[in-house]
Amino acid sequence: MPVSLAELARLTSTSLSGDGDCQIETVADIASAGEGAISFVADLKYKKHLASTGASALIVTPELADECDRPALVTPNPRLVYARVANILFPPESYAPGVAAAAIIDPTASVADSASIAPGAVIEANAVIGENTRIGAGAVIEHDAEVGDNSVVHANAVVGHHCRVGKRCILHACSVLGADGFGFVRDENGDNIKIPQTGRVVLGDDVEIGASTTIDRGALEDTVIGNGVKLDNQIQVAHSVQIGDNTIISAATAIAGSTKIGRNCLIGGLTGIREHIEIADNVMITARTLVTHSITRPGSSYSSSTPMDETINWRKNSARFRQLDKMARRIGSLEKALQALKDKQ
Amino acid sequence: MPVSLAELARLTSTSLSGDGDCQIETVADIASAGEGAISFVADLKYKKHLASTGASALIVTPELADECDRPALVTPNPRLVYARVANILFPPESYAPGVAAAAIIDPTASVADSASIAPGAVIEANAVIGENTRIGAGAVIEHDAEVGDNSVVHANAVVGHHCRVGKRCILHACSVLGADGFGFVRDENGDNIKIPQTGRVVLGDDVEIGASTTIDRGALEDTVIGNGVKLDNQIQVAHSVQIGDNTIISAATAIAGSTKIGRNCLIGGLTGIREHIEIADNVMITARTLVTHSITRPGSSYSSSTPMDETINWRKNSARFRQLDKMARRIGSLEKALQALKDKQ
Amino acid sequence: MPVSLAELARLTSTSLSGDGDCQIETVADIASAGEGAISFVADLKYKKHLASTGASALIVTPELADECDRPALVTPNPRLVYARVANILFPPESYAPGVAAAAIIDPTASVADSASIAPGAVIEANAVIGENTRIGAGAVIEHDAEVGDNSVVHANAVVGHHCRVGKRCILHACSVLGADGFGFVRDENGDNIKIPQTGRVVLGDDVEIGASTTIDRGALEDTVIGNGVKLDNQIQVAHSVQIGDNTIISAATAIAGSTKIGRNCLIGGLTGIREHIEIADNVMITARTLVTHSITRPGSSYSSSTPMDETINWRKNSARFRQLDKMARRIGSLEKALQALKDKQ
Repeated sequence: MPVSLAELARLTSTSLSGDGDCQIETVADIASAGEGAISFVADLKYKKHLASTGASALIVTPELADECDRPALVTPNPRLVYARVANILFPPESYAPGVAAAAIIDPTASVADSASIAPGAVIEANAVIGENTRIGAGAVIEHDAEVGDNSVVHANAVVGHHCRVGKRCILHACSVLGADGFGFVRDENGDNIKIPQTGRVVLGDDVEIGASTTIDRGALEDTVIGNGVKLDNQIQVAHSVQIGDNTIISAATAIAGSTKIGRNCLIGGLTGIREHIEIADNVMITARTLVTHSITRPGSSYSSSTPMDETINWRKNSARFRQLDKMARRIGSLEKALQALKDKQ
Repeated sequence: MPVSLAELARLTSTSLSGDGDCQIETVADIASAGEGAISFVADLKYKKHLASTGASALIVTPELADECDRPALVTPNPRLVYARVANILFPPESYAPGVAAAAIIDPTASVADSASIAPGAVIEANAVIGENTRIGAGAVIEHDAEVGDNSVVHANAVVGHHCRVGKRCILHACSVLGADGFGFVRDENGDNIKIPQTGRVVLGDDVEIGASTTIDRGALEDTVIGNGVKLDNQIQVAHSVQIGDNTIISAATAIAGSTKIGRNCLIGGLTGIREHIEIADNVMITARTLVTHSITRPGSSYSSSTPMDETINWRKNSARFRQLDKMARRIGSLEKALQALKDKQ
Repeated sequence: MPVSLAELARLTSTSLSGDGDCQIETVADIASAGEGAISFVADLKYKKHLASTGASALIVTPELADECDRPALVTPNPRLVYARVANILFPPESYAPGVAAAAIIDPTASVADSASIAPGAVIEANAVIGENTRIGAGAVIEHDAEVGDNSVVHANAVVGHHCRVGKRCILHACSVLGADGFGFVRDENGDNIKIPQTGRVVLGDDVEIGASTTIDRGALEDTVIGNGVKLDNQIQVAHSVQIGDNTIISAATAIAGSTKIGRNCLIGGLTGIREHIEIADNVMITARTLVTHSITRPGSSYSSSTPMDETINWRKNSARFRQLDKMARRIGSLEKALQALKDKQ
């Protein structure tokens, strides 16, 4: 259903420029936007699109407003207003309250009347499901677990026993909270003795967990995910890890046991983080880094990948990696020998 | 049930050499093959096995046919004929049509009479299931999703709302199509505002998706997987990615948002591919590469891993990585100093 | 329920030092332990905590026993005894025998009377479930599969058709055994022809499989996981891999097809292992290694990652990686030129 630009200005507390009756029904990239779409220009390098875009309206900075010849929302942060407009045009899916006939609810579980429990969902003994919360098809909420108000647990996700999920959280399909942490001790016979994993997983509010992401329960201390943390798909979080508020972690990252990550960090995909280390607030880690020791300086940035190259070149350079120490020593020898020659002259 | 070699020759359109009545009941590696097995030799380096193998019959190239003293299928492409023979001997599992009593089908869903719906499967409102298609135990087809004819969705896999799966596709267990893409904007308070993910996942025909592989729905533009694409297990495909026809991607690879991959590419396992880049057709990427920029030349090959070494050596060489720039500068200084010495003489 | 230290000494066959009536109800880290907790000191570097810890009792080596002023269990291996004490205080969850009303059991399946089948679990035709074994909510045991005695298959895990799980195994949530291996041959048209995957997955006894870990069925030969093997979360094991007894593999590792890994290996997280190679017994692989060839020496240790650095430094050093071969050649030229200069003198 289209919304007028004036109404969008009002709802997003931005300045309206031009025709407020302009009807907006979707958001789009500036390059591909058409009739009825609103797009945004936050970066001067996209300025050239201001005239050529097919968008019916734009979201622009005050500096760009003069150069924009069509209806616009004017704001210092076009990207953020774009997100807000998108949320107005495309509100989250709503679910009819009630328990589907084919859901399986233990009689000792507590399910809010306003909650929506899909067919095939399983809610075990003493579990608690909050107001307006959705439990998707085939999702399993194990005994004594708790999912807060206004959260969504998608299809076939699992919330392990005694775990806690806050308010307004989203757990995507096949994510798993509360599997056992990975802890063993070898006995005299070389057999691996399992160390019981007795902690929980505790999620704050406004947390989003990606599809097939796994967060293990604590060994002793709980695994704790702060408010507003966003974890992409295929992430592994080991036992007793702590992640600070509003940290964002991209896909396929793995975090080893008992590590503490600060607030507002940005961690690139495919990153590995060792056990028992600490990462300060606002740290940025680039993709495919192996974080091998603590990072104490807030706001610092760390990396460790190697650059891509054509395979034919890479093969030659990569082979030299195994000679690096020798190369360094040869340089040292050359420096000495050269100095000796100089001294002679 | 055994099949005669003559019948296999007919079904695979290959030349028969020797006894066509030879009965074949299985396929096997040339080294371990026994009575009743057929094996193949495509490579001259396995020629020595021609005489010693226990296989009852072989699939060989015309060049090798003379040296083969037992019944054989003769073809320029033994490996391909081997695959075809294996498919004759071991046809895909067939499933009895019908809906299991314990399956949960929304009355508005459309399920072909020839489809097979397993116990515990959930088919939501307005979903469409094609002819001869199998939906496995516990699999969830969300509302308005569509699975084409002759496809198989294995146990506990999830097809998200509005997503499209083509014909003859295979989705392995716990794979997830159509979780939300990972897109956020920080607001004035440092909170992460979710950008609605309004696109779909659209799979072509003959696509195979590995166990626990996740493909996010598009942010605005759909995520599109071409015909004949094969994705191994544990792969992550982010929002609005496009993968061209017949591309093959090995396990544990992660592809970031809006990236476009060409046709017939071969991408090794554990690879990472950055967002918003393009990869040409027929490109090969070796295992554990981090693809950081677009690859424009079709058929080129790229890499970025580092070579394995004994830990004791690796430690020394790896430490030098952090001195590489200094080492390069020291070489430059040496070259200059040496030239100066030479000039003096 | 608390247990006396004397009883713990008896049950773990350790020497008691001090007050045997001391009541122990939990285990804890030495640094955070409080009243009622037992902790351990295995390493002299934690000796300083002996006096300051809040633990009611300790587990210490004979060398440390004299310096320990509180009740203690004395043993050469405090870490192992700690694991045993933890298992006494926190025994594995027990499940009431019987089949939940909402479980779906094929009439041809064989389920032990002592087994516990949760709501929403699906047991297909001819499957066999052993004594005291638990099948969790939404888990799927496909036709002709077998799960041995005293095992636990957690929520939404999948055991593929014909696969075998031994005794005392634990399969965590959303793990998948027996998806098809990844094998294709390109035909004349460039289409990818699937090679049928006819092997099984066979797990020994005492195996633990992490959440969202996937183990493919064999192509021809079974995929075989030895007794006592422990696989962390998000691991990929390809078709026909063999893993020897008691090997431990950390999260997010991927092992390619037909590779054989020895016994008692320790493989760090995020490791990749190529296809068709062999790794000897007792080998250690550090995190994020790419194992590119066979490792024949038992007990050896291999690595291949690159060191983390601040991004600003890493950028400079990383760029030099693409010049490594040239750098090595420049060093060689310098050595020759210097020698020529020396020879002249």
